[in-house]
Amino acid sequence: MSERYKEIVAIVSEVIDFIDADNAYCYEIGDGQINYVYRVEDVQGNSVVVKHADKAVRGSDSMLLSTHRSAIEHKQLQVIGEIVPNFVPEIYYYDKDRHILIMEDLKDYELLSEALLNYKIFPNFAAQISRYLFETLFRTTDIVVPSRQKKQEAKALFNPEMCEITERLSFTEPYFPGELLHYTPENEAFIRERIFENEQLHFQVAYLKYRYKNFAQSMLHGDLHTGSIFINQDTLKVFDPEFAFYGPMGFDIGTLIGNLYIPWMITYMTATEDKVEFTFWMEETIERILTRFFIEYDTNYDALVTDTMARSDAYKEHMHRQIFSDSCGYAGVEIIRATIGSDRALGLKRSRSPEAQTQLERILLGIGEKLILSRHDMVNGKNLVAEIRKWVDQLMQEYA
Amino acid sequence: MSERYKEIVAIVSEVIDFIDADNAYCYEIGDGQINYVYRVEDVQGNSVVVKHADKAVRGSDSMLLSTHRSAIEHKQLQVIGEIVPNFVPEIYYYDKDRHILIMEDLKDYELLSEALLNYKIFPNFAAQISRYLFETLFRTTDIVVPSRQKKQEAKALFNPEMCEITERLSFTEPYFPGELLHYTPENEAFIRERIFENEQLHFQVAYLKYRYKNFAQSMLHGDLHTGSIFINQDTLKVFDPEFAFYGPMGFDIGTLIGNLYIPWMITYMTATEDKVEFTFWMEETIERILTRFFIEYDTNYDALVTDTMARSDAYKEHMHRQIFSDSCGYAGVEIIRATIGSDRALGLKRSRSPEAQTQLERILLGIGEKLILSRHDMVNGKNLVAEIRKWVDQLMQEYA
Repeated sequence: MSERYKEIVAIVSEVIDFIDADNAYCYEIGDGQINYVYRVEDVQGNSVVVKHADKAVRGSDSMLLSTHRSAIEHKQLQVIGEIVPNFVPEIYYYDKDRHILIMEDLKDYELLSEALLNYKIFPNFAAQISRYLFETLFRTTDIVVPSRQKKQEAKALFNPEMCEITERLSFTEPYFPGELLHYTPENEAFIRERIFENEQLHFQVAYLKYRYKNFAQSMLHGDLHTGSIFINQDTLKVFDPEFAFYGPMGFDIGTLIGNLYIPWMITYMTATEDKVEFTFWMEETIERILTRFFIEYDTNYDALVTDTMARSDAYKEHMHRQIFSDSCGYAGVEIIRATIGSDRALGLKRSRSPEAQTQLERILLGIGEKLILSRHDMVNGKNLVAEIRKWVDQLMQEYA
Repeated sequence: MSERYKEIVAIVSEVIDFIDADNAYCYEIGDGQINYVYRVEDVQGNSVVVKHADKAVRGSDSMLLSTHRSAIEHKQLQVIGEIVPNFVPEIYYYDKDRHILIMEDLKDYELLSEALLNYKIFPNFAAQISRYLFETLFRTTDIVVPSRQKKQEAKALFNPEMCEITERLSFTEPYFPGELLHYTPENEAFIRERIFENEQLHFQVAYLKYRYKNFAQSMLHGDLHTGSIFINQDTLKVFDPEFAFYGPMGFDIGTLIGNLYIPWMITYMTATEDKVEFTFWMEETIERILTRFFIEYDTNYDALVTDTMARSDAYKEHMHRQIFSDSCGYAGVEIIRATIGSDRALGLKRSRSPEAQTQLERILLGIGEKLILSRHDMVNGKNLVAEIRKWVDQLMQEYA
């Protein structure tokens, strides 16, 4: 083992008693741009994951990033672990000086993002993730938690450095010409007209950006794409909350919905026989996440809300509509980012003909725009999925 | 001098060189419920004000309040002092361990709240306070200040304890029956129907409360009533920012407007000959504060805004409308609080006939309700003042 690996094993041996450190080995399992992620495993097969947040990020010789992200991750997993212990990895140890987290090794899980590239179906996913969303988002608002306590939690989760990355990558860069964006040469004029020079779209994205920056509604995961979810046929774990902060709950819901629309769109467009079931499941999943979230909301609101002023049907309905329209808007923002942004979605990096790629980019940007501009007209998950399908069918004819 | 006064002089002698401490005396000048405020003055007439934030508040044997309010006050005066140095008292010294602020003695000023009780007119007030409002509120947003820097400032101004007081006194207590509220027995049924059981009003106040709690738009003074302003014929100083935090800018604007409507209403209703000029000036002042704030906004927006997504006429107009409607809403909240709340406005404590008091309470509550419910229909200061006047004239006939 390298010196680095020996150090990691030494740290584990100090603080974790169920690993036989004298007979353990260590290797890197993460290939992310930001952090170092190792597995330490002994000969009996007992293992832990060690995540190290270094100031010098893993994927770049020059980029520095505050190690405070490690404290954020620990804090979020702690708070969320008390609300939904089954849906987050267990934390065994946190070293705030060395920025090291030692946690549960999720060996029996796979990344949802990779599973979706292989067209795998997870029947429990919608029910479980909608529960995660409702519990973590609604239970951290200050109509549920006493105002003083919520403000203390929010202070601990101030995350200016990571938020700024999102402000740039999701809410700014995709809307101006730039070398970091990705699209086919055939889409040059299309994107100029429909994205860069679309004043109505810019205005609505500015609104959503301002809301992201200022509206401290709930404790968010902050980066809830399919690469932040470990899953198997039974259950799931949501991890990597380094972007956590207090923001509008629609941002978490919308990021996930937007992220799911991309693999759906890819298989829907290619429409091969053997992908029909997967495509159907994906669309049903999007609908069910929204439907179930709002069933939880409508069912539990009255019992959970402690702020006397917010205890009314009028306020409950207002907030329901507002969370829904925010979710649509942020889903659109995520689709546009993941389609042309500097760190585009995996599905868009797959090889396909230039014609198919051009068409795919246009349709995804069309869905994104539709979700942002029509977010106040959509009323529920069923309606959203139907509207998007209608819109996509229309666009597929138009861009065929 | 008492031991306490000797201690205060000793502290001043340590850190302030322009006071001849050997020949100085000290006395208490504040009669507030919360802090101890002293003047230390030497025989040449040089003086400073010493403000001490004790955990045991001045006006109660049992109430304890976090001394963190002193750090908040210092931080706000520091930041705002860099933006509008002429409009805040100069800070000479801050002792964060003893929670003591030593600052400029504003001997040549009087409290605006007291001056208004004596019907004094200040021709520069509207121009100066609207400038204070625009500069402090707009220049602390994160479309002007870089997002990371603004988040750091906001973290330093987390103020859960003081915010909770406002949440309770302004946004909750006045809307439910309670022993702490004040109104004439004749208004019992009126207030039950129009305030306690007014579902539409409750919903809109819940909206404004949630926005106060969650929307971290600008660095606010947080308690900008006429008792937080020292004034003379030349200029003014805004002080006592212990309630400062990042919140919706309409809260500061609206609190001031609401607070000015009360003395206006009292003199307008009694309508004696010698108060005509004062009454006219008050109404003109309310209109001009709003008009000038938005002239500053419209004129300076393009040059000040650094967030590229917010640089558009559409966003500028949207934010203009939103600040205006927030200001109307919070003005209404302040009027209702100051009319029936536990710490009602001075003008309402003056002696008048039960009939006049009953009528005054009803009209003020009517203005408050109107401002809250019609806040999206009003378009500018001129329109607001005209609408309120029309409404008041109608109510005066109705309740005559």
